[in-house]
Amino acid sequence: MRWGFVGLGQMGLPMARRLAQAVDLTAHDPARDAAEGLRLVHRAPDLAPCDVLVTCLPNGDVVDTVLFGPEGIAEALAPGTVVVDTSTTTHAAALRLAARLGDLGIGFLDAPVSGMQARAEDGMLTMMVGGDVARLDPLRAALGTIANRIEHMGPVGSGQLTKLVNQLLFNINIAGVAEIMPIAARLGLDPVQIAQVVNSGTGRSFASEFFLPNILKGVFDQGYPMQAAHKDLVAAEALIVEHGLSAPVLAAATASYRETLTQGLGHLDKGAMIQVFEQKAGTALRARDPD
Amino acid sequence: MRWGFVGLGQMGLPMARRLAQAVDLTAHDPARDAAEGLRLVHRAPDLAPCDVLVTCLPNGDVVDTVLFGPEGIAEALAPGTVVVDTSTTTHAAALRLAARLGDLGIGFLDAPVSGMQARAEDGMLTMMVGGDVARLDPLRAALGTIANRIEHMGPVGSGQLTKLVNQLLFNINIAGVAEIMPIAARLGLDPVQIAQVVNSGTGRSFASEFFLPNILKGVFDQGYPMQAAHKDLVAAEALIVEHGLSAPVLAAATASYRETLTQGLGHLDKGAMIQVFEQKAGTALRARDPD
Repeated sequence: MRWGFVGLGQMGLPMARRLAQAVDLTAHDPARDAAEGLRLVHRAPDLAPCDVLVTCLPNGDVVDTVLFGPEGIAEALAPGTVVVDTSTTTHAAALRLAARLGDLGIGFLDAPVSGMQARAEDGMLTMMVGGDVARLDPLRAALGTIANRIEHMGPVGSGQLTKLVNQLLFNINIAGVAEIMPIAARLGLDPVQIAQVVNSGTGRSFASEFFLPNILKGVFDQGYPMQAAHKDLVAAEALIVEHGLSAPVLAAATASYRETLTQGLGHLDKGAMIQVFEQKAGTALRARDPD
Repeated sequence: MRWGFVGLGQMGLPMARRLAQAVDLTAHDPARDAAEGLRLVHRAPDLAPCDVLVTCLPNGDVVDTVLFGPEGIAEALAPGTVVVDTSTTTHAAALRLAARLGDLGIGFLDAPVSGMQARAEDGMLTMMVGGDVARLDPLRAALGTIANRIEHMGPVGSGQLTKLVNQLLFNINIAGVAEIMPIAARLGLDPVQIAQVVNSGTGRSFASEFFLPNILKGVFDQGYPMQAAHKDLVAAEALIVEHGLSAPVLAAATASYRETLTQGLGHLDKGAMIQVFEQKAGTALRARDPD
């Protein structure tokens, strides 16, 4: 079985390297001529013929271009090929891609992953898959080299929905930390002590555990840039209105996120939301006692 | 050294029992004539004379009544006594109590605890203390029998502020779960699977870990009743306005909390917030597969 892989970024490169140890894999990235341990081709269509094509790209528009653009690979793929899109796109994009590929007789699984670069390097990602389980099952062993947890969530689009739900909760939790912790500092509590109490108490979250230590050090470049992650909030807004749903806490978190972007902090990670509320509270949450 | 203890409720009873094994302790609760393992008095003022008086009461008004009401104990306490209030009250209440007791020459520490009944029984509470550290230090060994972690946070009121900050984050995190998870169910995802993904992913929080398993079982009586915990949101509202602070996500979470109370669900724990959003989404987050 031949595998193709498109997109050798922060997540894609370690994923492709792990997969290449398990299967016969050829890779492509428009910005790379070489990558240690990988066999590359210069044009995406040269990945064909292959049995499985994995994509790991920044958003749904890029996936669309890679598959159906002027240099697109979709036309070169044989009927029966399966495209496994590990990009974080949207429910709507997954449905659209599946329909267009389906017209060519090509299968599609939306399979976004969660976990950061370190977990990608260790093959410890969680993969949330939407689509025909009969297409997924034969690939589980190989995909298991990049994701130690593979959850089939339902029909096409379910993988994107699952990842979105997780990301929305993550955004709410960090937005809460961003507005509440400067209040604590402004009211005279020591930032290091209050962070310790929160992270050992009922107020803790992955967001508080991941971001508070970095915030206390003034480090804001250890997560995904906010301007890239903003697509999750755009996708949520569309879904919520489409289905007539109510999400008031998310709406408030989204407003804080947006304000952080409009203040020019979008290149930083989500911990940077605290800078907006530090300004409002007239305080800063740096460690007073750096031990 | 003689200790008095007022308030033998869900938290106070196990706390008093553990303390009584370490110090010479007499206890009082207006609703109890006897409690196994404790020496009781029928009137609060009969706890005097004592060197330390611990209070563990539902809110600041009750603390006020116990100390300064018609049957109040404050007048019976000798100058030099220290009152350790483990109740969750407010920053303002702590300042007021400290001032009134100070006029009588009596010391005051606000020392709310976090952790639930099970942790009280094991002496594994976290105690957040505000007030003169020189009054706290001689009591640390004895208080260590109820709280394995005792954090001195600053001047009087700092203990209440610290607990409040933790509770506000807890409320935001559960309000997020309450509105996002019914959206997931409405969009067709399996509640059990999505709960597993969230609780192993970046969206997780103590709130999601504690409440989601109970929500999936339809169990809403495992935490503190919302109508009692609502005092935290009242206290936050006062502080935020007093200090001119901004807390938009908390405001949205507070609105969801309030709506849950006004729907008559205030006797349930915070997981019940999900019932409001299940209604809005026209779905229920029960486990489809109860295994």
